[in-house]
Amino acid sequence: MSSVSRRGFLAGGAATAGGVLVPAAAASSASAKKRAPKKRTADVIVVGAGLAGLSAARSLVAAGHSVAVLEARDRVGGRTLNHKLPNGTVVETGGEFVGPTQDKVLALISELGLSTFNAYLNLKSAYTNGQNQTSYYTGDLPSAGATGIVDLAVLVTELDNLAAQVPVEAPWSWSEAATYDYETTDSWVRANAPDPDTAIDLVNLFFDSAYGGIAAEVSMLYVLAQIAGFGDANNVGTIERGISSQGGAQNSRITGGSQIISIRAAQHLGNRVVLNAPVQRIEQGARSVEVYSHAGTWKGKYVIVATPPQLAAEISWTPLMPPLLDAMRRRMTLGTLMKIHAVYETPFWREDPGVWMALKVGGVVPEMFDNTPPEGTPGVLMGFHGGHSWRQYANNPAGRRAGALADFAQAFGERCLNPIDYFEQDWTSEQYSRGCPVSVVAPGVVTEFLPNLTVPFLRTHWAGTETATYWNGYMDGAISSGQRAAGEILELL
Amino acid sequence: MSSVSRRGFLAGGAATAGGVLVPAAAASSASAKKRAPKKRTADVIVVGAGLAGLSAARSLVAAGHSVAVLEARDRVGGRTLNHKLPNGTVVETGGEFVGPTQDKVLALISELGLSTFNAYLNLKSAYTNGQNQTSYYTGDLPSAGATGIVDLAVLVTELDNLAAQVPVEAPWSWSEAATYDYETTDSWVRANAPDPDTAIDLVNLFFDSAYGGIAAEVSMLYVLAQIAGFGDANNVGTIERGISSQGGAQNSRITGGSQIISIRAAQHLGNRVVLNAPVQRIEQGARSVEVYSHAGTWKGKYVIVATPPQLAAEISWTPLMPPLLDAMRRRMTLGTLMKIHAVYETPFWREDPGVWMALKVGGVVPEMFDNTPPEGTPGVLMGFHGGHSWRQYANNPAGRRAGALADFAQAFGERCLNPIDYFEQDWTSEQYSRGCPVSVVAPGVVTEFLPNLTVPFLRTHWAGTETATYWNGYMDGAISSGQRAAGEILELL
Repeated sequence: MSSVSRRGFLAGGAATAGGVLVPAAAASSASAKKRAPKKRTADVIVVGAGLAGLSAARSLVAAGHSVAVLEARDRVGGRTLNHKLPNGTVVETGGEFVGPTQDKVLALISELGLSTFNAYLNLKSAYTNGQNQTSYYTGDLPSAGATGIVDLAVLVTELDNLAAQVPVEAPWSWSEAATYDYETTDSWVRANAPDPDTAIDLVNLFFDSAYGGIAAEVSMLYVLAQIAGFGDANNVGTIERGISSQGGAQNSRITGGSQIISIRAAQHLGNRVVLNAPVQRIEQGARSVEVYSHAGTWKGKYVIVATPPQLAAEISWTPLMPPLLDAMRRRMTLGTLMKIHAVYETPFWREDPGVWMALKVGGVVPEMFDNTPPEGTPGVLMGFHGGHSWRQYANNPAGRRAGALADFAQAFGERCLNPIDYFEQDWTSEQYSRGCPVSVVAPGVVTEFLPNLTVPFLRTHWAGTETATYWNGYMDGAISSGQRAAGEILELL
Repeated sequence: MSSVSRRGFLAGGAATAGGVLVPAAAASSASAKKRAPKKRTADVIVVGAGLAGLSAARSLVAAGHSVAVLEARDRVGGRTLNHKLPNGTVVETGGEFVGPTQDKVLALISELGLSTFNAYLNLKSAYTNGQNQTSYYTGDLPSAGATGIVDLAVLVTELDNLAAQVPVEAPWSWSEAATYDYETTDSWVRANAPDPDTAIDLVNLFFDSAYGGIAAEVSMLYVLAQIAGFGDANNVGTIERGISSQGGAQNSRITGGSQIISIRAAQHLGNRVVLNAPVQRIEQGARSVEVYSHAGTWKGKYVIVATPPQLAAEISWTPLMPPLLDAMRRRMTLGTLMKIHAVYETPFWREDPGVWMALKVGGVVPEMFDNTPPEGTPGVLMGFHGGHSWRQYANNPAGRRAGALADFAQAFGERCLNPIDYFEQDWTSEQYSRGCPVSVVAPGVVTEFLPNLTVPFLRTHWAGTETATYWNGYMDGAISSGQRAAGEILELL
């Protein structure tokens, strides 16, 4: 229970660049290395300064323990990332939405003195079907009135009823777990939807962003478990809450951009957070653990690894990670997802055609949002580009740009073809994420491997949104996972 | 086209231990490090001294090029490994069988002056069904006469007919590719087998060893593509050739144990092969490439990476591996597989009950073989322990041993309960394999990712049995993949 070492990598004083902590060593790494002691200590060493790691650190510090948070990148926030526009406003190129029942993230926003605003506008949504016919709707989903949509409500109800049977804390323990884990979402939908082709089109459209994948890649049980988690202890999970804007998971954005949560949390943690410290090696002993990073070595009593699960398997572990835990993490592959933004002088589409959100079957950006900053200018459109569309365009950036702008134009008006700025954030090209938004598991993995999801490995405990029950894959799940992992260690310290 | 550097890590002279090359540095690493020059060169640097890497090196050397083969372990052979018994005979704890149409491995065996012997005996096989009823059969599969087996031939014919339509060089280009890639083998079999429960039992029994997995984990298209590859350019692939002993993939064993192929090939390559040289980092430039390993740095014109695909994604690449190639490799997860051996004074079961091979639905070792060395003693039984059985017992070694011996006893006689020796080889606990026998892909991966399977990354080309067409996942596929990768580079040098 020693106090936090003050001789850390940030000893020279942390500066901020774009609101992000930068270690002094970024300016003069040689001298920083010389000043740094050989081995620093903390009760708990946290690997990863995303929302999971930072939340774990907050809990441990609040309980009076010393903590070092080692972050591989030169910034905090993990899969959240702000992008500053020329007029000083920001948009989010990673996770951005929050909504009701996401109790943990809403509480943290409040604790940190931050605020939210409505992500949605009281305007129409556009839906373009697989035959390239566009219709308009209000509410959560293209309704039976929209071209080619029939009886989608039947399917949604059936899925909600199934999900209500899934124990959110342990989906593998459900009596029907194997049945649903042994098939893909694609084959289940084809066999069970009243109108399979339309249903598959829409499922793939949502999976493009939700999983950075296609329905064929995802265990049906994993999907039911995630639906079950679209709620909290007092509110059963539903698809509606997961896919909705107003009243759902996409209800709100965070003033200052979602990364501000991590930036603020890191500021409170001060020099406990060490940037540019990718961890190569973790050696666990009988009474302590040593964590080797590019920024030096830390010795502690426990470790919390709060990275994407597959990246945790790449750390060099001594002793070697047990096969059951390693094999599980190797099967937790992040989706392929990019966010594409186009910027305009103003959000002119709010007037004409009066659309704020759009879906396009087979689009380069199948899900599109008005992502204008709360200040009102510039006008910003955002499109998710994941799953099949990502793979089609991975070697064709010019085609991707042209296709994305064409999709924006089709839904929001021809003027969208000529943005004043255009930028992409490809999460698969981030060395320390290698995908987004979440590790999606294939058939068989939930029942065969995930019962070991949070099983500690000697002195190492696990955080990360992938280990969450409610809102698995969301910022809320990341926070709860960090709190859970910290709680496990508080029992031991 | 300079000659091979003679100042390599083995400069002090290679010794052999158990037939495996050991670098001089293993005895005195400090002095070896001192003697070694800072940077060694070769035309091509091969990462991995399994059959793929060694075959690539042979082709390149034969064409007059200099080569360095960097192997992470202290031995060659990759997923083949000999185990020496007290009387000096050997058994194989990794890949072991070869058979007709495996032209590449048979040719290499011949080139290296090695020989094979029949792996099968003219005795009965035992089949224990899901109701724990045992019957006996001869030939490839429990026939309709065996308890609970009906119409299996119908299913086999249907699969063979489908597989015959799959282009073995490019399964993703088949007109029906998406249909079969979007579902699991489990759901396809349940929907299409005349007797689904029995069929699934048998499919999982074979997948336990063939994929170290269950039918739910495997894309149906991947399975069809592999069946299509159970042949050669002159012989269409069939299930029969894949699962058979006599006349099939399990026809023969190699005198001296399968690892002898790699050991001999490495001896011919001499000090071009560097052991204890795990590669951390590969930096590719406009005209050369540098490979950083624990044993030093090599500079070359090209690199062939011949490791399991997922491990290749863990190398630190400069520049970063392109997302499409990285995301593909992250989805190529090796099965979970162990081989279990029990040793007895003599192979007494050959007399009574006169059984040489056994299958047991739900067994701890669902597939069991008489694996006695060609010398005839000691008697050795081998069981595959993969997929679901592996996962059940991962934390229960005592239960695994007791269960395996009970399975042996049920098929081969009560005396099997008391072996004179018992040993396990768990390929998931091998740091430089992390699974066996092959990377198995989940639904969606063949069509969404595998078209990039052998696409070079700058100066890096790819080998490994996972990149093979015919006999993908077998020793034969490893060899052909190495030859193919070498051929690509010979075009460029």
